[in-house]
Amino acid sequence: MKWDVFNICLFLLSLCNAVRYEPNWKSIDSRPLPSWYDQGKIGIFIHWGVFSVPSFSTEWFWWQWKGSPPVPGVEAFMKDNYKPGFTYADFAPEFTAEFYNPNEWAELFNASGAQYVVLTTKHHEGFCNWHTNYSWNWNSMSTGPNRDLVGDLADAIRKYTDMRFGVYHSLFEWFNPLYLQDQANNYQTQKFVESKTLPELYELVNTYKPDLIWSDGDWMVSSDYWNATQFLAWLYNDSPVKDYIIVNDRWGNDSRCKHGGFLDCSDSFDPGTLQKRKWENCMHLDKYSWGYRRNMKIDDVLSMVDLLSEMMETISCGGNILINIGPTKSGEIIPVFQERLRSMGDWLKVNGEAIYGSVPWSHQNDTVTRGIWYTSKKGPEGRIVYASISSWPEKDQLFLGAPKPTASTKVTLLGYPQQFEFKPGPSGGITLSIPVISIFDMPCQWVWIFKMEGLKN
Amino acid sequence: MKWDVFNICLFLLSLCNAVRYEPNWKSIDSRPLPSWYDQGKIGIFIHWGVFSVPSFSTEWFWWQWKGSPPVPGVEAFMKDNYKPGFTYADFAPEFTAEFYNPNEWAELFNASGAQYVVLTTKHHEGFCNWHTNYSWNWNSMSTGPNRDLVGDLADAIRKYTDMRFGVYHSLFEWFNPLYLQDQANNYQTQKFVESKTLPELYELVNTYKPDLIWSDGDWMVSSDYWNATQFLAWLYNDSPVKDYIIVNDRWGNDSRCKHGGFLDCSDSFDPGTLQKRKWENCMHLDKYSWGYRRNMKIDDVLSMVDLLSEMMETISCGGNILINIGPTKSGEIIPVFQERLRSMGDWLKVNGEAIYGSVPWSHQNDTVTRGIWYTSKKGPEGRIVYASISSWPEKDQLFLGAPKPTASTKVTLLGYPQQFEFKPGPSGGITLSIPVISIFDMPCQWVWIFKMEGLKN
Amino acid sequence: MKWDVFNICLFLLSLCNAVRYEPNWKSIDSRPLPSWYDQGKIGIFIHWGVFSVPSFSTEWFWWQWKGSPPVPGVEAFMKDNYKPGFTYADFAPEFTAEFYNPNEWAELFNASGAQYVVLTTKHHEGFCNWHTNYSWNWNSMSTGPNRDLVGDLADAIRKYTDMRFGVYHSLFEWFNPLYLQDQANNYQTQKFVESKTLPELYELVNTYKPDLIWSDGDWMVSSDYWNATQFLAWLYNDSPVKDYIIVNDRWGNDSRCKHGGFLDCSDSFDPGTLQKRKWENCMHLDKYSWGYRRNMKIDDVLSMVDLLSEMMETISCGGNILINIGPTKSGEIIPVFQERLRSMGDWLKVNGEAIYGSVPWSHQNDTVTRGIWYTSKKGPEGRIVYASISSWPEKDQLFLGAPKPTASTKVTLLGYPQQFEFKPGPSGGITLSIPVISIFDMPCQWVWIFKMEGLKN
Amino acid sequence: MKWDVFNICLFLLSLCNAVRYEPNWKSIDSRPLPSWYDQGKIGIFIHWGVFSVPSFSTEWFWWQWKGSPPVPGVEAFMKDNYKPGFTYADFAPEFTAEFYNPNEWAELFNASGAQYVVLTTKHHEGFCNWHTNYSWNWNSMSTGPNRDLVGDLADAIRKYTDMRFGVYHSLFEWFNPLYLQDQANNYQTQKFVESKTLPELYELVNTYKPDLIWSDGDWMVSSDYWNATQFLAWLYNDSPVKDYIIVNDRWGNDSRCKHGGFLDCSDSFDPGTLQKRKWENCMHLDKYSWGYRRNMKIDDVLSMVDLLSEMMETISCGGNILINIGPTKSGEIIPVFQERLRSMGDWLKVNGEAIYGSVPWSHQNDTVTRGIWYTSKKGPEGRIVYASISSWPEKDQLFLGAPKPTASTKVTLLGYPQQFEFKPGPSGGITLSIPVISIFDMPCQWVWIFKMEGLKN
Repeated sequence: MKWDVFNICLFLLSLCNAVRYEPNWKSIDSRPLPSWYDQGKIGIFIHWGVFSVPSFSTEWFWWQWKGSPPVPGVEAFMKDNYKPGFTYADFAPEFTAEFYNPNEWAELFNASGAQYVVLTTKHHEGFCNWHTNYSWNWNSMSTGPNRDLVGDLADAIRKYTDMRFGVYHSLFEWFNPLYLQDQANNYQTQKFVESKTLPELYELVNTYKPDLIWSDGDWMVSSDYWNATQFLAWLYNDSPVKDYIIVNDRWGNDSRCKHGGFLDCSDSFDPGTLQKRKWENCMHLDKYSWGYRRNMKIDDVLSMVDLLSEMMETISCGGNILINIGPTKSGEIIPVFQERLRSMGDWLKVNGEAIYGSVPWSHQNDTVTRGIWYTSKKGPEGRIVYASISSWPEKDQLFLGAPKPTASTKVTLLGYPQQFEFKPGPSGGITLSIPVISIFDMPCQWVWIFKMEGLKN
Repeated sequence: MKWDVFNICLFLLSLCNAVRYEPNWKSIDSRPLPSWYDQGKIGIFIHWGVFSVPSFSTEWFWWQWKGSPPVPGVEAFMKDNYKPGFTYADFAPEFTAEFYNPNEWAELFNASGAQYVVLTTKHHEGFCNWHTNYSWNWNSMSTGPNRDLVGDLADAIRKYTDMRFGVYHSLFEWFNPLYLQDQANNYQTQKFVESKTLPELYELVNTYKPDLIWSDGDWMVSSDYWNATQFLAWLYNDSPVKDYIIVNDRWGNDSRCKHGGFLDCSDSFDPGTLQKRKWENCMHLDKYSWGYRRNMKIDDVLSMVDLLSEMMETISCGGNILINIGPTKSGEIIPVFQERLRSMGDWLKVNGEAIYGSVPWSHQNDTVTRGIWYTSKKGPEGRIVYASISSWPEKDQLFLGAPKPTASTKVTLLGYPQQFEFKPGPSGGITLSIPVISIFDMPCQWVWIFKMEGLKN
Repeated sequence: MKWDVFNICLFLLSLCNAVRYEPNWKSIDSRPLPSWYDQGKIGIFIHWGVFSVPSFSTEWFWWQWKGSPPVPGVEAFMKDNYKPGFTYADFAPEFTAEFYNPNEWAELFNASGAQYVVLTTKHHEGFCNWHTNYSWNWNSMSTGPNRDLVGDLADAIRKYTDMRFGVYHSLFEWFNPLYLQDQANNYQTQKFVESKTLPELYELVNTYKPDLIWSDGDWMVSSDYWNATQFLAWLYNDSPVKDYIIVNDRWGNDSRCKHGGFLDCSDSFDPGTLQKRKWENCMHLDKYSWGYRRNMKIDDVLSMVDLLSEMMETISCGGNILINIGPTKSGEIIPVFQERLRSMGDWLKVNGEAIYGSVPWSHQNDTVTRGIWYTSKKGPEGRIVYASISSWPEKDQLFLGAPKPTASTKVTLLGYPQQFEFKPGPSGGITLSIPVISIFDMPCQWVWIFKMEGLKN
Repeated sequence: MKWDVFNICLFLLSLCNAVRYEPNWKSIDSRPLPSWYDQGKIGIFIHWGVFSVPSFSTEWFWWQWKGSPPVPGVEAFMKDNYKPGFTYADFAPEFTAEFYNPNEWAELFNASGAQYVVLTTKHHEGFCNWHTNYSWNWNSMSTGPNRDLVGDLADAIRKYTDMRFGVYHSLFEWFNPLYLQDQANNYQTQKFVESKTLPELYELVNTYKPDLIWSDGDWMVSSDYWNATQFLAWLYNDSPVKDYIIVNDRWGNDSRCKHGGFLDCSDSFDPGTLQKRKWENCMHLDKYSWGYRRNMKIDDVLSMVDLLSEMMETISCGGNILINIGPTKSGEIIPVFQERLRSMGDWLKVNGEAIYGSVPWSHQNDTVTRGIWYTSKKGPEGRIVYASISSWPEKDQLFLGAPKPTASTKVTLLGYPQQFEFKPGPSGGITLSIPVISIFDMPCQWVWIFKMEGLKN
């Protein structure tokens, strides 16, 4: 990450105290996003917790089992495989993490080309993956791993990579009696927030100095209950991470998709159109779960084409993509996830130019040909436009309706040495001549990106 | 329990609001003890918790393992029998309680002749044996027994017996990070008290309406930190148990042995002299532990002579005796404890007259002959004095230095039909003639009680 | 154990090879029992195995669960406390034996006054408590204790006491498929015997050189199937223990109560009359189980009166008594069993004279007064007769119908210094005068023994 | 599988009893291999057992831990993650197999294009995955899965596919005391063979009627010790599978790579030259283990290019390929293995013509160009030759030194519609013109096969 002008300005402003944020959404929303986030584009999301012990169904296992109404398959799983009276908390000692090697994780994530990592420090189950003062005997130091999972990953990420480190944190907890009391009181009391949610957030920030807080579990109640703006004002004004911290929008049912930092409107949010505000598509390699499922089939895993297509669509519309994997209870990231992440890294070595630091173009997807998504960058001689395609053209021509070629237009394929011939379309647009390229010379196997320079503005 | 004059007065006073206690020790101390406690004399104490899982060393197992300095034998036990990284919380799922039958416990305690029962609702380990809102996932509903151990015993005691039900509760918790923070702040903060200790106490009182709160874990800091007098003022003025609740003295290092209800100055407190204030000797049948130890030897168990002698000494000095047993993790009270308790009950059927409702006499132990302890009662014709002996006289005479016989004095042995001959001692006192009694006619095997009526006042 | 005449004879005979036993019952039965057994009278029986893990119901737990028909309470216990599909073999790793201290066991058994110890090396479950070559992965070295339970106890018994060491061994195994095959073949095949039963027996004898083999599990089929006489001929002729080994009678449905060494006709065999052949009453301190039951109540344990009365009845009729206790899966002998055993030892210190080395008298129980059992010994001046009573006489006289007093008759109470007065009964017998004895002077609390010297033969 | 002339002959011969095999290698070796095996070419190998519980290092885990000398990493793994005294047998209850779905396995293996499946019924650990009479309490019915793993897979394979079902069986067992005794006796005794190895083999054959016995664990001793030729004579003459059974060569240190059925000379045997006798390359998708390893990395998994190249090399030299995967203790085949197997199936749909039923050609690999392997088939107009290449030619020509073209020669690419131009090489051989083919038209991603018809013989 470079120390750019924007950050210098932020630094100077902070020096003269010119900016202090007030605990209201208008003020909070006025803070510019530190630039590292938009430039980075791609993050890795990690769902890890006690739900990784049953590793069945999803990370919502506890709710599916004991919530209302229970999910029959989950109830049956427990009945068939555990003794009567077995509780969710009884899973915790089996969260062994004996193969957890944060250095290996850091190497893998770095190799994937991602620029930031977000770990569940606490999901809705309430189990804290760090050395906390606020979740006694329901955290990874006191039972199970006997280890500070969050701290160890933060250290490894920072030591071995240039990636940013973010913390996922659920505001609410399904079954925490303090939360349930507040809820029963129509959220007129805030016992849970005062003794659990906020102390945890302050502790996380002060201890691990994250680059990103990925809040969740907000949707039942407004941000007032969560004291969200007060926390964010502290975070932006006085916290040790005020200069670079970024948050999302999940701070209450009045805030989601409206206020905060970038917008994570819903899980797997992918609007397909340019958004006014910076947003993120958080999605999972396992189509059916964020948490690891032991019985995941290969068909349940996104293919590289699916992954890269979704990535290009997201980025062309101004979003970041946060790609989730669920480690096992023992702390391994299973080989098929390693394969997807490393393949993505290989692809980005060729195509990263169209991703990192890019901005949306005037068009997101092509007006005429389906499946084409644009990004752009400021080039030395005008704007560079990148067009991605997710399947190689069947014919020897590819028509793009949006770009307007000029005499000096130059078209190449990222990773391929030669220029492409083209001609202007009959009524606008550009028609590329697609030569037959040997598989031997193909720069990648899935999703190709054309680079167009010298287009008409 | 009879509804006596004292209680009527209390009731009337409460009606006219004549008594409201202030949150200071002077006012708290001014409350008369409800009479059931002094009249009952004998209670059963139960230490049960996660420490019952290792059931090794004592109920201080966690502290002995991880406290400072660790106890070598306990460290070695863990090293030899558990995997590295095993935590104390990992014991909890093994706290199975599958044989816990509160009705059987109630029957046993009742058969012992005890008049009240005190169960550890939470020891210094912090594990709550009830359905609490304030110790999430570290309580008997969430892990291990999957059951409300406290509520189930309270119900059984009340349904099947006339005994009173009391709750042991530790104010502090060795390793609770909130407590440790307050401690690190020199107790200038009260986070732990506000979010854990007091909510638990209010919850226990409101849910289970105990007759007795047996507080503990107070000694590190003053009662101000614990907000003890405020709690007690509420307990005495406004709680649902205000008319009959009794507490002990362990509410802070300024309170122990000085303030509160009855005095439990130290574990196994047995001063041997009359105390100005009602007190209690809490002691354990296992000489070396309150909690169950799997490797307890028979020599580690108090004999009936030891138990009954200590009982008589305690009661003669104005104390109550609280006799502890530790159940197993499965919920059994082991046979040798059953045997001691049932033998005590058999003995009390013969000798209870000298115990229940008795008061100390002018002398506690005899001035001349060792091992004799007195109690007394108001009889229809003057005071009755009881003298207990823990070994049967070797000779045919027993000299008691304290009693002064008159012409109308009558001496009997509890459970034995015939009167005993006696003569006044040479310089005061009384000399009993001890006939040879066949083992067949002996009323009991250990500790005998002489009853003397018509003594000089 | 003294080296007596009998043993010298045996030794000489063995030198000259005068006696070789043939593999038939007539020859096997002709071998005289080595004298240590009849002289010792009292043994300790230990039932320990994988059944000590559930420690519920009895040591027949597996059969009660999976045999035909299953016992409902046992099925319910498994359903309520274990996951579906849990197998009996799955219990084995929980047979931890972490507190197993053979030296402590040896000290306890020795203190009980017993003269021999018999440990289950293998019960009907087939789990071997020793380092065997014939029960791979279903033995205490391979799973669970990870220890040679048999060898360690044999060593301790021999190192720290003069007791004899015996091995219980079940010929059959409920669920061993080799046995079930032989059974299905109407016992016309002997695969099980050849590959399991006999190799185990030879291994036990050669490895641990036991003093006693306590065979069991014989009853389904004749001793021919078990090759019993062949084994016993080897045992008596050529084995390393041929000079002192003793066996019982459970070698087949044709042998039990008829052939072999001493007779264990049935569990808790106690005929109440003199038997022609040496026999044994094997019985259990827990009235309802040989194996440890976690939920045993104190009323389920034999009282000292019950135990000692049964002992006297047994010995007066020529039997030995083998008293069973079941250790826990952790390897403790629970305190109540310690208490019974140590109390027995204390009692035997006073009364052992009438037990060890005694022989039956002409009468076993008294002809007139109930509850009196006789033993006798050769005294320096004629036969000494011992009469035990299990309750102290209510009156000042005790009439014994069997003994015939003479002028030189002398009557004492074991452990009591003074002689008793007596007079001949009106029509035979003897009337003892029972003085009132202070509890202080009583030699024991339960079961007293009168010693009569100089009776008419 | 077609009913071909060979099988008709076999059938007729068996009718007239013309062939009976003698228990010697010469006779055993004289039996022709049933044709299904050579025609099928590709099998799936499955290593599953108690070693799947630690799933660390390899399926030799037990030996690496307790054998001589121990492997430090394995010892450390146990020390770090298990309690002292934990035994290998203690792993068995954790072999849960709760997700084992043989129908899904059958579907997957069928989709892979394999023609037979070989499951470890028992590896060197001795644990039997079937309902056996000869490994009591050390089998999948008695502990762990509580299920007949072998029978359930056999049923599914036969019900849902046309694949053949084979059983892997280890003759020896590392730690079986009977084996160790025989070994200590210099293999002059055969206790182990008589009571374990042979009964198991007969039981497997009679119960599951396998198509293939994949013997292993033979290497320490000669086939005489194992009674191998006797067993095989029975298998070929009288067993229920005599008409179609196939075995390998691992029946003793004198047999391996010399006698039996097909030859599995060593693990991953891949000689690279034509072998005189039918052989097999058994190899593993995990480069470092046959059994599942939880910490396997993606780089440890064979790529599709590696797998298919090795397959073509093997088949061109007359071998079959047996591709191994290790399921988890829960019974899943992990996604990356599913991906490899399904990708292989897709590839075989295009290229299977050159594989199934093929025979080696006169040349195996090309004499001039590296990485080209040949197979052949009888075509309607002379021999068809297939040449596989594992990387697409960089240039526009590919020279093959071995084939000799004629005027009527026709060259195509499997899965590609058009014929290829060629010309004879300057001094023999053939030069193919390689057109530029769009990735869109490529029949597969890895390893391509040219089909040549009308070559000179």
